[in-house]
Amino acid sequence: MSLMNNLSTSTISSSSSAFLAPISFDSRTQSVAFPLKNINVVKCITNPQEQQTAYKTKVSRNANIAKLQAGYLFPEVARRRAVHLLKYPNAQVISLGIGDTTEPIPDVITSAMAERSHGLSTLEGYSGYGAEQGEKALRSALASTFYGNLGIEEDDIFVSDGAKCDISRLQVVFGSNVTMAVQDPSYPAYVDSSVIMGQTGQFQKDVEKFANIEYMRCTPENGFFPDLSTVVRTDIIFFCSPNNPTGAAATREQLTRLVQFAKDNGSIIVYDSAYALYMSDDNPRSIFEIPGAKEVAIETASFSKYAGFTGVRLGWTVVPKQLLFSDGFPVAKDFNRIVCTCFNGACNISQAGGLACLSPEGLEAMQEVIGFYKENTKIIVETFNSLGFKVYGGQNAPYVWVHFPSRSSWDVFSEILEKTHIVTTPGSGFGPSGEGFIRVSAFGHRENVLEACRRFKQLYK
Amino acid sequence: MSLMNNLSTSTISSSSSAFLAPISFDSRTQSVAFPLKNINVVKCITNPQEQQTAYKTKVSRNANIAKLQAGYLFPEVARRRAVHLLKYPNAQVISLGIGDTTEPIPDVITSAMAERSHGLSTLEGYSGYGAEQGEKALRSALASTFYGNLGIEEDDIFVSDGAKCDISRLQVVFGSNVTMAVQDPSYPAYVDSSVIMGQTGQFQKDVEKFANIEYMRCTPENGFFPDLSTVVRTDIIFFCSPNNPTGAAATREQLTRLVQFAKDNGSIIVYDSAYALYMSDDNPRSIFEIPGAKEVAIETASFSKYAGFTGVRLGWTVVPKQLLFSDGFPVAKDFNRIVCTCFNGACNISQAGGLACLSPEGLEAMQEVIGFYKENTKIIVETFNSLGFKVYGGQNAPYVWVHFPSRSSWDVFSEILEKTHIVTTPGSGFGPSGEGFIRVSAFGHRENVLEACRRFKQLYK
Repeated sequence: MSLMNNLSTSTISSSSSAFLAPISFDSRTQSVAFPLKNINVVKCITNPQEQQTAYKTKVSRNANIAKLQAGYLFPEVARRRAVHLLKYPNAQVISLGIGDTTEPIPDVITSAMAERSHGLSTLEGYSGYGAEQGEKALRSALASTFYGNLGIEEDDIFVSDGAKCDISRLQVVFGSNVTMAVQDPSYPAYVDSSVIMGQTGQFQKDVEKFANIEYMRCTPENGFFPDLSTVVRTDIIFFCSPNNPTGAAATREQLTRLVQFAKDNGSIIVYDSAYALYMSDDNPRSIFEIPGAKEVAIETASFSKYAGFTGVRLGWTVVPKQLLFSDGFPVAKDFNRIVCTCFNGACNISQAGGLACLSPEGLEAMQEVIGFYKENTKIIVETFNSLGFKVYGGQNAPYVWVHFPSRSSWDVFSEILEKTHIVTTPGSGFGPSGEGFIRVSAFGHRENVLEACRRFKQLYK
Repeated sequence: MSLMNNLSTSTISSSSSAFLAPISFDSRTQSVAFPLKNINVVKCITNPQEQQTAYKTKVSRNANIAKLQAGYLFPEVARRRAVHLLKYPNAQVISLGIGDTTEPIPDVITSAMAERSHGLSTLEGYSGYGAEQGEKALRSALASTFYGNLGIEEDDIFVSDGAKCDISRLQVVFGSNVTMAVQDPSYPAYVDSSVIMGQTGQFQKDVEKFANIEYMRCTPENGFFPDLSTVVRTDIIFFCSPNNPTGAAATREQLTRLVQFAKDNGSIIVYDSAYALYMSDDNPRSIFEIPGAKEVAIETASFSKYAGFTGVRLGWTVVPKQLLFSDGFPVAKDFNRIVCTCFNGACNISQAGGLACLSPEGLEAMQEVIGFYKENTKIIVETFNSLGFKVYGGQNAPYVWVHFPSRSSWDVFSEILEKTHIVTTPGSGFGPSGEGFIRVSAFGHRENVLEACRRFKQLYK
């Protein structure tokens, strides 16, 4: 009885191996010390000697996963940060890189989660399996709060453990026989999940693109909105606004054209609105503000960047019942089947937090958190402007997109890290059109953002 | 600014449509009243008239998802329960069906979750993105508590939002070009996730099996352990012990044969040990108690049935670094990539609960919860024995597998529901070899289990 035998052993076994650590365990921790062995093993996957003698199964590796390039962008950034910390153990590293929230969650929200937690110890308060699609009260509150006048109903909304997870579940719904388009640059999860599902060809090193993905160029020249007249028809169109990483927000007129483009092509738009509440301009917060969008669009969203829920894990996806496959079968019906079979609902405590976020007090508290990060953004934008850089984004998103013309993003990333101990994100990691840019995240404590800006001024004055 | 406009509207919009409701929103709620409209719409997917005129995209439906049969078993059970409640609105329905936990979570565990929740409102206690693979302290505690002497290390363990979710993530790792075997009967998620990934052919109504899946017959005749001499070689072998639904637990000798079988065939075993702590006999709690298993097996487990975490969502999967694909590439490395790309880690509050579960007090508290359900199991087993039924399981699992020779499982399910208002689960829903059985779950309040047993005695005396 192995567990029973261990009832006494309160000692924690420490791992002697760490071959996964660099791109896994440590990928996002804030710890500032990395054992050397992690860095050693990051280069090799396993010891070649070992492999020669080691037993191998006869199961072939999934060829689609083998197509993926190196590590996911952010673990790679974390790895370089780790290497830097080994070189400068005492460096005051400031991370404006992965876009992780830093400010405490408002008490009105955490109190609701604590209350739900305690309630789970009572007969009245206990709940087991919830509906896979989310608790009725939360779905209703999301419908009325975010889509009150847009005709989105509670049963169009699927509560989840985050937008990133829903993007993969949507890819499972679509399967391997669809074609897809993405903004270039864009959040890497769209492309990677497409590769994993087998929708793409191999990675083409020369152009730094996967075959069979339509990359919709988004640059200063076109105001970060693709020239749809040059975009090839695809089944699925991933579109993020306000955009990560460029910070650009599409206007009502642009989104109207996008919806018409999808309708003309019979495409499905997967619209990522995770930063909608960061909008300052009067652009749509939801794709469903565009007439006809319910017939061609899915929208995915998240509490992560509004309430600091990056670790609490809560988001939602809207799949309108009006959205139909070519045979007339509702997309929502298949998404529901995947949610029921491959997912078991979001944590009930997180859902209590989400409901609190949507109370009048919670909404105000979220606006304060968002306002704080928007202040950070302003400080960063002004800094780079004052240094004569061309700066994009920032107005409608917590990301600043700084142009370093004719330079390599990774070179700039390394220069900044080496000389200022600040972690940013290289634009080329988001797609070939991101080359020559770096993304500076506005998620950070105020003093860190101010200190970072001082260092930027030192470096580029 | 749609959200801002709604800051005042605290009214919750009520949905006028419910076409997804029966197999979705209401599938597992305990509410005893269902609006009639839900029942009406369950039969049709969308209004055919509507479909004729409605706009359709040009995106083809995923043919693999189209292969899935009807609803997932448990939503179908829930639907029939709902229909029954419409017929008998005042019936005292007792659910011994889906296997949902009913007892409150011990305070030592919920207090830790409440504390973590409150902590998220403080600068010191706040945490954003955690490691996708889980918090180091929890992975370490899992390694030492469950695998202390088995050579499983913390970086072999991936914390997740539940075993069911990990099963689908594993299927994404394996992809569409593998073959798989399952125990027949077995938990439906193995087969359904395989169908979704495109590993199977169509459903063959005559034999009630999917083409290209190896169904390993588990019946009283073979002691619910498959005759491996008749099992065709597959890439993946799903194996659950203690078994859901039969309650059978494989012996050390049987598991040794299974591991040898996998090794001879170069197969990978996905071992589901979600009920391991319900074991009374001295059988292995983990597949890794079998020498050599690390080279051929993955193990998935969960806090759900130990601590009542079905709604809190926390589990883990062990992928030993010794497990290699045919080309020598570590399976763990690809699983890690999927976890990083398609998942973002389990809720940090849930993880605080998991850590509390593994404290000495938490382990004792879990044992009490498990002991309570085992008492229920004993009562149910004795009841059916006293009625002269052949009863299986119960000894090492919270499920009782009752034999109704030469009868249809769904008929027995309906008879019991109609005459006693008790919800069970028809054995045939777990696979063709489950025909003639019903699964009675031991998860329930004591008074409900006692009352249910009184009714069983009434019906079958």
